Amino acid sequence: MAQKIRVTVWNENIHEREHEHIRKIYPEGMHGAIASFLKKQPDLEVRTATQEQPEHGLTEKVLAETDVLTWWGHAGHDGVADAVVNRVHARVLDGMGLIVLHSGHFAKIFRKLMGTNCGLQWREAGEKERLWVVDSSHPIAAGLGPYFELPHTEMYGEQFDIPKPDELVFISWFEGGNVFRSGCCWSRGRGKIFYFRPGHETYPIYHDQTVLQVITNAVRWAKFNGNTQTCGINTCPCADQPLEPIKK
Amino acid sequence: MAQKIRVTVWNENIHEREHEHIRKIYPEGMHGAIASFLKKQPDLEVRTATQEQPEHGLTEKVLAETDVLTWWGHAGHDGVADAVVNRVHARVLDGMGLIVLHSGHFAKIFRKLMGTNCGLQWREAGEKERLWVVDSSHPIAAGLGPYFELPHTEMYGEQFDIPKPDELVFISWFEGGNVFRSGCCWSRGRGKIFYFRPGHETYPIYHDQTVLQVITNAVRWAKFNGNTQTCGINTCPCADQPLEPIKK
Amino acid sequence: MAQKIRVTVWNENIHEREHEHIRKIYPEGMHGAIASFLKKQPDLEVRTATQEQPEHGLTEKVLAETDVLTWWGHAGHDGVADAVVNRVHARVLDGMGLIVLHSGHFAKIFRKLMGTNCGLQWREAGEKERLWVVDSSHPIAAGLGPYFELPHTEMYGEQFDIPKPDELVFISWFEGGNVFRSGCCWSRGRGKIFYFRPGHETYPIYHDQTVLQVITNAVRWAKFNGNTQTCGINTCPCADQPLEPIKK
Amino acid sequence: MAQKIRVTVWNENIHEREHEHIRKIYPEGMHGAIASFLKKQPDLEVRTATQEQPEHGLTEKVLAETDVLTWWGHAGHDGVADAVVNRVHARVLDGMGLIVLHSGHFAKIFRKLMGTNCGLQWREAGEKERLWVVDSSHPIAAGLGPYFELPHTEMYGEQFDIPKPDELVFISWFEGGNVFRSGCCWSRGRGKIFYFRPGHETYPIYHDQTVLQVITNAVRWAKFNGNTQTCGINTCPCADQPLEPIKK
Repeated sequence: MAQKIRVTVWNENIHEREHEHIRKIYPEGMHGAIASFLKKQPDLEVRTATQEQPEHGLTEKVLAETDVLTWWGHAGHDGVADAVVNRVHARVLDGMGLIVLHSGHFAKIFRKLMGTNCGLQWREAGEKERLWVVDSSHPIAAGLGPYFELPHTEMYGEQFDIPKPDELVFISWFEGGNVFRSGCCWSRGRGKIFYFRPGHETYPIYHDQTVLQVITNAVRWAKFNGNTQTCGINTCPCADQPLEPIKK
Repeated sequence: MAQKIRVTVWNENIHEREHEHIRKIYPEGMHGAIASFLKKQPDLEVRTATQEQPEHGLTEKVLAETDVLTWWGHAGHDGVADAVVNRVHARVLDGMGLIVLHSGHFAKIFRKLMGTNCGLQWREAGEKERLWVVDSSHPIAAGLGPYFELPHTEMYGEQFDIPKPDELVFISWFEGGNVFRSGCCWSRGRGKIFYFRPGHETYPIYHDQTVLQVITNAVRWAKFNGNTQTCGINTCPCADQPLEPIKK
Repeated sequence: MAQKIRVTVWNENIHEREHEHIRKIYPEGMHGAIASFLKKQPDLEVRTATQEQPEHGLTEKVLAETDVLTWWGHAGHDGVADAVVNRVHARVLDGMGLIVLHSGHFAKIFRKLMGTNCGLQWREAGEKERLWVVDSSHPIAAGLGPYFELPHTEMYGEQFDIPKPDELVFISWFEGGNVFRSGCCWSRGRGKIFYFRPGHETYPIYHDQTVLQVITNAVRWAKFNGNTQTCGINTCPCADQPLEPIKK
Repeated sequence: MAQKIRVTVWNENIHEREHEHIRKIYPEGMHGAIASFLKKQPDLEVRTATQEQPEHGLTEKVLAETDVLTWWGHAGHDGVADAVVNRVHARVLDGMGLIVLHSGHFAKIFRKLMGTNCGLQWREAGEKERLWVVDSSHPIAAGLGPYFELPHTEMYGEQFDIPKPDELVFISWFEGGNVFRSGCCWSRGRGKIFYFRPGHETYPIYHDQTVLQVITNAVRWAKFNGNTQTCGINTCPCADQPLEPIKK
């Protein structure tokens, strides 16, 4: 049998501890809600980590044992230590998959990987969102209908200040008149990255079965299955023995 | 256990029947050499089809039962019936994977899917080719080294007249001074397409274990694992019931 | 002074001749409305051509003298002669720019260049459309605001069955709940292609100054300014004299 | 008449000052050689800046008056102040074009924009390089032949650890058996970026007329001609007034 995919579900875990009305929606935290769904999948091995833990729960050992990391942050972005950001960055370039959720668009790690500011427009009005599948060939859209809806969400609107996605899976329609590229894929080094828009702390987004199915699909997609032998990734070696003779 | 991937290995099977020196290299045809390797993979179910068969061996039934089709053609391109080309085209758009090999760059089906002429430069001088992996994150490069070599090949050189690849996996270096985008991915409709350059009939390319490994990786990559529910693919439906109220 | 860009505005010109209420909106035809705006630009030299003319107005001579062709078709798609489609196709691959408008998504020439069926969902309910700029760096979006609106349009909805655009400039929001990739760029051979969604015959879309500005921007973008010397485009030459010595 | 494009040619200017044999090749520095060619173009207004100047010659004022910046660095990468890197980064996202040359692949500004380590393989053996045009439609390849050669160069080999280029213009063949993506385009925010490989300090690369023509083409391509009105770039505004009514 194939080895299980080792997932670490990371959450800053701030809003849930500070606000009772959020704790009511997510008594185990948003990480708990996500992990609970992932743990039901027979091919996944799941743990969680949170910002208040030593080294934010992302030690060298944890990252070495993580195939795919999911990231939820918002209020605590600035408090994430640069040393941990650099460690996660190096691990992504070395092949760890990364799923960045919702307000994680402004996480240090996402901005460092993208190279842009990752801004957008936003509005908290509890409006309806409809996410349309725009790439039928993509495994992250497997098992979904042509679209799915979230009845009440925070709005994120274009222009989303990201590099051109390598693959664009979802585009959102918002009741208030905006659109958004809500499911975007990139590779960086050996690692694969998926940004997925849904997920505000004041709505039960991470109890929605379709949202959870998309995250599960994304975990499987982001698992490294590439080439470990190329030079250049995380190195810059001198190749002073040419493969072919060079005339003087 | 997961369902096996059903592969059909298609070959025009002309050079092998006409020339004894080619038959010596490929006594079972190039399709036979490829199929023989694929049949050793426990997750694949393999059959072959050739151009001289009725409907070129690609009946509606065969295509309906094919997850991934590999294509080798050269001398017989013009003889492939348009009806069969259109049938394969529709099946790719509906989700069948397609691996186009070597001189298949000029196959009707490849040009129809690309929308360009798919020309290139070529030279038969038995020169050395070295294929470099340029996307470490890609599953088609899994298990390979940083490059692999073919001691004697026909040369294909840029500019290869193709649409920009969605993903570029290999770039070839040729002894005679040329380069080529030798491993290119696209999606069309629900289907995934991989063009792989190596494979001339006068060299034992399809006995090379790395070449066969790449084809195997590509078959697994090209297997449909996407979304079957979107509208628009092979249809153009009227959606006259709006999802939201429209003001008059 | 730089040479003028020679634009040919092509229209099937059927609805305008058949329906008085459409003729009222476009007394000179939709081609007339578009050409009239383009003619005001000092860097453009503009002519029109229509389907009812001999060879649909697209003779070898006209195409040879056309830098950028704009295309509007709908009711007459099937009536466009394959010989003319092939001629336009060859000319695009050779460097002519092509702007495909609205229902031109189903034109033979567009499907031939894309390699897909180019389906979509549609609805005629006169709903509002808002087109968001999603690529600030793109010259086709120059001079526009963050979005522009059309008060009454036909709806086109995802999934639009096209190859992944090389560049995505606009995404549409529709009142009835749909989204659409409304401004898409590709290159094919030496030619550049832009698909632009707005433009139904029953609405005065081609009198809208922003729509006309986008078409003007697209004409300038699509003008060939590339490389005429590469091999492979429209040819497949033998390069039997290697650039470097080949060992036997 | 159109406004001139304001170019700032930046160079660390270290090797030229330290080594007489390099000063012999570039008596005015590499920046001097590049600027000298650019100054002959009637549409360009050219200045230079070097690392040893206050603020590395890249003050707020200089950057505000720069449409396109070219960058050559190597020995001094670490000495470039982070404040200046951040200033250039912000200016690129706001629309300034950036041309990164040769060993600039390891410049702080390039790595920050790419999000990857930007490693590669290298070899100093004075070998031959041949750069093939692989995108005939691209303005950066205008006026060139199908390829051009540099008789003696440092080698850079794949895998080049960069995000997938938005556009790939050149692929290099090296005598010693390597290949490299030598001309790569990206957009970041409103800005356009071109990486161009040639240019070692010990060879007269920046006296080669084709290399200088490519840099000139790239300057024209990288000049901002996009949209200044989108939100999201360098901001993250609250859009609390919806464009459409939201039901409670």
